[in-house]
Amino acid sequence: RRTGIAEAVYAPGKSPEQCAAAVAGLLAGGPAGPVLLTRAAPEQVEAARERNPGATETAAGLVWHALPPAPGTVLVLTAGTGDLPVAREAVAVLAAYGHDSTLVADVGVAGLHRVLAQRRRLAEADVVIVVAGMEGALASVAAGLTGAPVIAVPTSTGYGSGLEGVTALLAMTASCSPGVTVVGIDNGFGAGCAAVRTLRPLTGGPR
Amino acid sequence: RRTGIAEAVYAPGKSPEQCAAAVAGLLAGGPAGPVLLTRAAPEQVEAARERNPGATETAAGLVWHALPPAPGTVLVLTAGTGDLPVAREAVAVLAAYGHDSTLVADVGVAGLHRVLAQRRRLAEADVVIVVAGMEGALASVAAGLTGAPVIAVPTSTGYGSGLEGVTALLAMTASCSPGVTVVGIDNGFGAGCAAVRTLRPLTGGPR
Amino acid sequence: RRTGIAEAVYAPGKSPEQCAAAVAGLLAGGPAGPVLLTRAAPEQVEAARERNPGATETAAGLVWHALPPAPGTVLVLTAGTGDLPVAREAVAVLAAYGHDSTLVADVGVAGLHRVLAQRRRLAEADVVIVVAGMEGALASVAAGLTGAPVIAVPTSTGYGSGLEGVTALLAMTASCSPGVTVVGIDNGFGAGCAAVRTLRPLTGGPR
Amino acid sequence: RRTGIAEAVYAPGKSPEQCAAAVAGLLAGGPAGPVLLTRAAPEQVEAARERNPGATETAAGLVWHALPPAPGTVLVLTAGTGDLPVAREAVAVLAAYGHDSTLVADVGVAGLHRVLAQRRRLAEADVVIVVAGMEGALASVAAGLTGAPVIAVPTSTGYGSGLEGVTALLAMTASCSPGVTVVGIDNGFGAGCAAVRTLRPLTGGPR
Amino acid sequence: RRTGIAEAVYAPGKSPEQCAAAVAGLLAGGPAGPVLLTRAAPEQVEAARERNPGATETAAGLVWHALPPAPGTVLVLTAGTGDLPVAREAVAVLAAYGHDSTLVADVGVAGLHRVLAQRRRLAEADVVIVVAGMEGALASVAAGLTGAPVIAVPTSTGYGSGLEGVTALLAMTASCSPGVTVVGIDNGFGAGCAAVRTLRPLTGGPR
Amino acid sequence: RRTGIAEAVYAPGKSPEQCAAAVAGLLAGGPAGPVLLTRAAPEQVEAARERNPGATETAAGLVWHALPPAPGTVLVLTAGTGDLPVAREAVAVLAAYGHDSTLVADVGVAGLHRVLAQRRRLAEADVVIVVAGMEGALASVAAGLTGAPVIAVPTSTGYGSGLEGVTALLAMTASCSPGVTVVGIDNGFGAGCAAVRTLRPLTGGPR
Amino acid sequence: RRTGIAEAVYAPGKSPEQCAAAVAGLLAGGPAGPVLLTRAAPEQVEAARERNPGATETAAGLVWHALPPAPGTVLVLTAGTGDLPVAREAVAVLAAYGHDSTLVADVGVAGLHRVLAQRRRLAEADVVIVVAGMEGALASVAAGLTGAPVIAVPTSTGYGSGLEGVTALLAMTASCSPGVTVVGIDNGFGAGCAAVRTLRPLTGGPR
Amino acid sequence: RRTGIAEAVYAPGKSPEQCAAAVAGLLAGGPAGPVLLTRAAPEQVEAARERNPGATETAAGLVWHALPPAPGTVLVLTAGTGDLPVAREAVAVLAAYGHDSTLVADVGVAGLHRVLAQRRRLAEADVVIVVAGMEGALASVAAGLTGAPVIAVPTSTGYGSGLEGVTALLAMTASCSPGVTVVGIDNGFGAGCAAVRTLRPLTGGPR
Ligand SMILES: Nc1ncnc2c1ncn2[C@@H]1O[C@H](COP(=O)(O)O)[C@@H](O)[C@H]1O
Ligand SMILES: Nc1ncnc2c1ncn2[C@@H]1O[C@H](COP(=O)(O)O)[C@@H](O)[C@H]1O
Ligand SMILES: Nc1ncnc2c1ncn2[C@@H]1O[C@H](COP(=O)(O)O)[C@@H](O)[C@H]1O
Ligand SMILES: Nc1ncnc2c1ncn2[C@@H]1O[C@H](COP(=O)(O)O)[C@@H](O)[C@H]1O
Ligand SMILES: [Mg+2]
Ligand SMILES: [Mg+2]
Ligand SMILES: [Mg+2]
Ligand SMILES: [Mg+2]
Ligand SMILES: [Mg+2]
Ligand SMILES: [Mg+2]
Ligand SMILES: [Mg+2]
Ligand SMILES: [Mg+2]
Repeated sequence: RRTGIAEAVYAPGKSPEQCAAAVAGLLAGGPAGPVLLTRAAPEQVEAARERNPGATETAAGLVWHALPPAPGTVLVLTAGTGDLPVAREAVAVLAAYGHDSTLVADVGVAGLHRVLAQRRRLAEADVVIVVAGMEGALASVAAGLTGAPVIAVPTSTGYGSGLEGVTALLAMTASCSPGVTVVGIDNGFGAGCAAVRTLRPLTGGPR
Repeated sequence: RRTGIAEAVYAPGKSPEQCAAAVAGLLAGGPAGPVLLTRAAPEQVEAARERNPGATETAAGLVWHALPPAPGTVLVLTAGTGDLPVAREAVAVLAAYGHDSTLVADVGVAGLHRVLAQRRRLAEADVVIVVAGMEGALASVAAGLTGAPVIAVPTSTGYGSGLEGVTALLAMTASCSPGVTVVGIDNGFGAGCAAVRTLRPLTGGPR
Repeated sequence: RRTGIAEAVYAPGKSPEQCAAAVAGLLAGGPAGPVLLTRAAPEQVEAARERNPGATETAAGLVWHALPPAPGTVLVLTAGTGDLPVAREAVAVLAAYGHDSTLVADVGVAGLHRVLAQRRRLAEADVVIVVAGMEGALASVAAGLTGAPVIAVPTSTGYGSGLEGVTALLAMTASCSPGVTVVGIDNGFGAGCAAVRTLRPLTGGPR
Repeated sequence: RRTGIAEAVYAPGKSPEQCAAAVAGLLAGGPAGPVLLTRAAPEQVEAARERNPGATETAAGLVWHALPPAPGTVLVLTAGTGDLPVAREAVAVLAAYGHDSTLVADVGVAGLHRVLAQRRRLAEADVVIVVAGMEGALASVAAGLTGAPVIAVPTSTGYGSGLEGVTALLAMTASCSPGVTVVGIDNGFGAGCAAVRTLRPLTGGPR
Repeated sequence: RRTGIAEAVYAPGKSPEQCAAAVAGLLAGGPAGPVLLTRAAPEQVEAARERNPGATETAAGLVWHALPPAPGTVLVLTAGTGDLPVAREAVAVLAAYGHDSTLVADVGVAGLHRVLAQRRRLAEADVVIVVAGMEGALASVAAGLTGAPVIAVPTSTGYGSGLEGVTALLAMTASCSPGVTVVGIDNGFGAGCAAVRTLRPLTGGPR
Repeated sequence: RRTGIAEAVYAPGKSPEQCAAAVAGLLAGGPAGPVLLTRAAPEQVEAARERNPGATETAAGLVWHALPPAPGTVLVLTAGTGDLPVAREAVAVLAAYGHDSTLVADVGVAGLHRVLAQRRRLAEADVVIVVAGMEGALASVAAGLTGAPVIAVPTSTGYGSGLEGVTALLAMTASCSPGVTVVGIDNGFGAGCAAVRTLRPLTGGPR
Repeated sequence: RRTGIAEAVYAPGKSPEQCAAAVAGLLAGGPAGPVLLTRAAPEQVEAARERNPGATETAAGLVWHALPPAPGTVLVLTAGTGDLPVAREAVAVLAAYGHDSTLVADVGVAGLHRVLAQRRRLAEADVVIVVAGMEGALASVAAGLTGAPVIAVPTSTGYGSGLEGVTALLAMTASCSPGVTVVGIDNGFGAGCAAVRTLRPLTGGPR
Repeated sequence: RRTGIAEAVYAPGKSPEQCAAAVAGLLAGGPAGPVLLTRAAPEQVEAARERNPGATETAAGLVWHALPPAPGTVLVLTAGTGDLPVAREAVAVLAAYGHDSTLVADVGVAGLHRVLAQRRRLAEADVVIVVAGMEGALASVAAGLTGAPVIAVPTSTGYGSGLEGVTALLAMTASCSPGVTVVGIDNGFGAGCAAVRTLRPLTGGPR
């Protein structure tokens, strides 16, 4: 809580009761920032909601203590439509902090006109999140079109040579576009948190 | 140049003449931002300087068109002293953009008091760069002590199970501290560029 | 049996009859130490029990010939709640040898106060087991807070960059905290056995 | 020889005499196509020349029995200047078969205008070779700008996350641009041979 | 569309509606070339067909706007019968462009007479596609028997040391037969597209 | 210092002055335990000695503040003679803490009589360190012959399939002998520290 | 057929009809040696039997044209009981060639007395097959106890650090026992074929 | 010694004195079979010779107690000339046991006629050793042309995608030719020992 960054409970592998209790524990600390329950199955959602009223349902899961609207222009790009669930997780974390995002899907570099059509948005964004699997080339291209911070999320979408996201992870961290940063495979939550950290100056510091 | 992010010439594998010409090419574009020559050997430095007057020597190599002082509190932490060359590369890129940094070396988590002694600096930083090899745990710990953006640089220092930086790269991207971002192995230049992108709001946007 | 270390039958891939027979074979050797049946499904448990009376049910499976209480202060820490099943396997092996353990879950380094709150327990332990997945940083941090032997267990919990436990395995063996030792991925059984070996001097040698 | 594809002697690890003899052996088969000696050190070149007169020196090494000029528009792109030696090896193999190439270096996707400036050449080429290290994104981008066959060569240039060319190899074979094909790491020779195979219809078949 | 290369929608991970809409979007661009829906489940096929009439069903999925017959002799070889689905995907892409193919299955090098029996076809082909899993040796052998372009497709068939296609991918890119090119694991679609690019000169250029 | 575990300065990558200063810094903290300078070159040794008098030279490097003799029976086994430098590093760390060790080299399992001849020593040891490269099988065999804690050190000795120690690392952590623990590749220092931690009960606790 | 080595149809991924036809194709070649159908599901077995009468059911699947009894002493050892299915596949291939085998399971090196009890059998065998997963140390130990050819089969049994057989594969090929040979992961069929090749001199050559 | 298989001292990493002493130790055991000193530098050879008279110099190093001529037809094939040093090591081990070998170099599958020209030799051999780097396809092809045991040696020759022999190691163990066995990367010594084991029946058993 002390960092002002989201406290989140990762549901897989926990019983519904454990989920509910974990959320309750975080909320017990007082109204210090959003609390999330991510990747939860219906029973986990239900148990958490029942014990902890006041949650909003988002693409990243349930959120308690969402923050009021805050400034910041966030652009989230995906290479394919299969990357959308991961992208939406980032969008939801940002929303919990009051930040709107523009999500543009399926602008992979195979058809370069698609990402070039986002040039103005790239130039105007305060932070850009790029979600891509397979060879993850979109991160390098997008970073060459903006001076804003670029947070790349490798995904496990696709098959074969994508190696469950490992190829994109390596490729993104090897990007020749200066200043690309990378989070873990399929970690839309982490990308959202990194964006929230980056937008702090626009919100007047820790909230 | 259009992104406002550093143009850099990476010297290894280029002849002194190629280095000099590459720098000249970038400078020919007009005074749009810093130009760097990185990881250059003495003959490369000499050739580049002779053809392109006005360079400053820094830890990241030669810099032309360095920008005037700019606001922003940057903290650069290293786990060991072997990580210093990579850290200094990041510091020099920031300096080319006018940003001062505080560099604190050798605060690896094996002696936790060392990083805990940096708590206040971590809390006050606008951006934190963590440079670490072997298991790279400092990134996770530092990120838990600040709400600022954390840019982690895995290094190839050490031996054996560090696998030339691959272990730290994997560990940092798998960090359980929400919002840690990672650049490539030994890529202090990239970390510096990412920090420059992140500090843009404090400088009044692209310069 | 000659080493005094647990004989265990690993159930997956065996028929219920094979499980029962394997236990019987070990018990036939006489009362030389605990015999365990681990990771058994209900039918395997049932068959083994029926043929070999006198078993106790534990988190690590069935135990025959558990030893009487023995001294030794064991601390088992987990980074997340998803690591609990592996941790409990270690606890159960220790219990079969008469050793009590204190199990503290969810003290991952992202919230450093959680592991710092265990400082006294760490200082007083005779042996510490650290169970963690993803980047496994808890092992390095815990080892810096105790002079006791530290046995780290990498787990396959989490997703993506954790690479099914490989990231934690590499990171833990690359730990910069001197003296961390590591067992196989998800091998709570092995960690328990290593702890039993370590505690031998406190029990007056082989039992 | 029967396939009409280059016979080449790979010099590293052979004595000067072995090089000379290997070339002699291939030439003994009669004038069936070019014979190359690649990656040879000066003594190897000298020994091979002395025993086998009539060689031309090229970027790929010595060539005997080079073929007369043949049609075909070949475009060779490199992401960085460090990729040039590999690119030149491909150019020289093509030259041995009578094919001219246009080599354009340093058009990596970090500055997208550089590859976009090659649009017309990409559209008009009969075959395109893309040579790139690190994340190798240029292959995907170039393939989206041409309907010609694209042969990608991953290189071991750069450092760290490029993993000596493995990252580019994986990324290029995972390319989301349909129809990108890939040869081995640093294998400019192989890319040249693949281009020669591809251009056969323009030369009136096997020569 | 601009490259004249197939636009394809990859169905896995998309809802039936998303599939139908994606196809509609590509068709909306006008009659510029074939549009494919690949690896679709029955519901996805149904939804796509209903919204977009005029599709033909092929081994690679549905095809709209298939092109009229075009010249070109294509030989597709597989090492085992398990490689057939991937091979058929390549055949179907070629068919969508009007190219016939000869598909010969189960000519793995363990029984060399099988591939030797294809010698004439190999010599006469304009392009050869080799589909093989495990050690993928068929690509090297076939390339030694033809001067035509060889496109190798590593597959994930088999078990154990085949490592889900990674072994064949590495082996094929390390082929000592000069000029073998490789696409991604199980990427029959990509191999088909590469063949279409290669056959362009025979069809009078982009269609 | 607080854990009572060795403070060590790892020399590679540091200037002689940095080595000397790092040692001085650790000694400044007062007489709390041994201080080591490891893997130092002659100039580094000289500089460190000159600035910090009172060092003893050991196989693990220089030691200051070595502790007086302490009880404990330590057996160090190596599979080959190439593993000796790593083994000696462990022996020296133990010596710095006052513990004698018996070092028996070249008892690899290819000649099983060699390790069987150590049976009595294995049975009587308080802790066993096994140093082995290539397939590292000695760890599993030794652990089956003792009830004492077994600390395995994978080494990078040998060539080829040993993969610079990675094979032994994986094999040792996958050991089917219950309770084998593993440190990093070539990390004799870490093995020595782990043994010191394990022997603490015999020395009357932290010293 | 020409090598006299088993023709086998690998059933997974084939339809029952494809299985039946593949067997029929091999049998059509005349009575040149055994024909096997391996890893077949019940429907595949049924279809193959119906179309091709005269099969015997074995652990490796159906066998047609089994050869009459032949000399040769074969010892098959497994480290655990989970390795039995792979071992039985080897035994069945040998049986198809008329060779009896002695199969001794569960003699892993953790309890060295188990393999030592097989000393005489090891000394007397004409060929030894060792089937083991996890760290695969049994191959090295067994090879040190016999002068006969040793064929090691790494298996994917176990979990975690065994990495689905990759650890055993690497360890076995890195064995320090001179002359250990290795087949693919879980490839009991291949081990059986290798043994058949090795026993040829005892049967009076190719049969 | 008890297995009748070569005792060998691997020189790299040993001092000349250690080499000499190790050989002396093995010879002290009496005339039980050949003793080898492999991969020794001139000073190591000299020291070993001086202390232990009676050695013969071979491609595998020095040999003491070579055995008299023994029957057996051994064929050693290499894919390239760069594989010769490894092949010669196998030949020398065989020679130490009295077995002659026929060594045929540079018959890689890229030019299939080269290996087909060895058909008769392959059919008549008692054992075949195949030495190959890069994709190692020669092992699969050769095994399809003989019913004799095939021992494959992956080598680290070549560059790039050969991954220092790992690609050939994986490919050879994944061979679809039934009965191929594999030793470690560059392990010509091991291949020679495996061949000696295989030829034992022809020599009248252990010698
Ligand atoms: N020290 C460095 N580390 C990482 N990337 C660098 C470094 N110096 C320059 N670069 C990047 O490398 C590319 C220049 O490569 P080149 O065209 O070969 O000079 C540019 O994308 C730079 O942003
Ligand atoms: N849960 C477990 N995790 C790891 N190893 C185990 C486990 N249970 C038993 N073992 C070990 O597995 C082996 C028994 O395998 P098996 O003979 O197949 O029953 C013994 O070496 C045990 O020490
Ligand atoms: N520069 C090169 N890169 C890759 N392969 C090459 C090169 N030069 C020759 N080759 C191939 O290497 C093989 C020759 O190897 P060797 O028999 O050792 O001379 C042939 O298959 C050539 O096609
Ligand atoms: N159980 C098995 N394990 C490994 N290889 C097998 C097995 N059964 C058959 N094979 C081999 O697989 C190939 C047959 O593949 P297919 O043509 O797909 O039936 C032949 O090379 C056989 O020698
Ligand atoms: Mg798309
Ligand atoms: Mg330090
Ligand atoms: Mg938690
Ligand atoms: Mg450049
Ligand atoms: Mg087949
Ligand atoms: Mg030895
Ligand atoms: Mg067992
Ligand atoms: Mg050759």
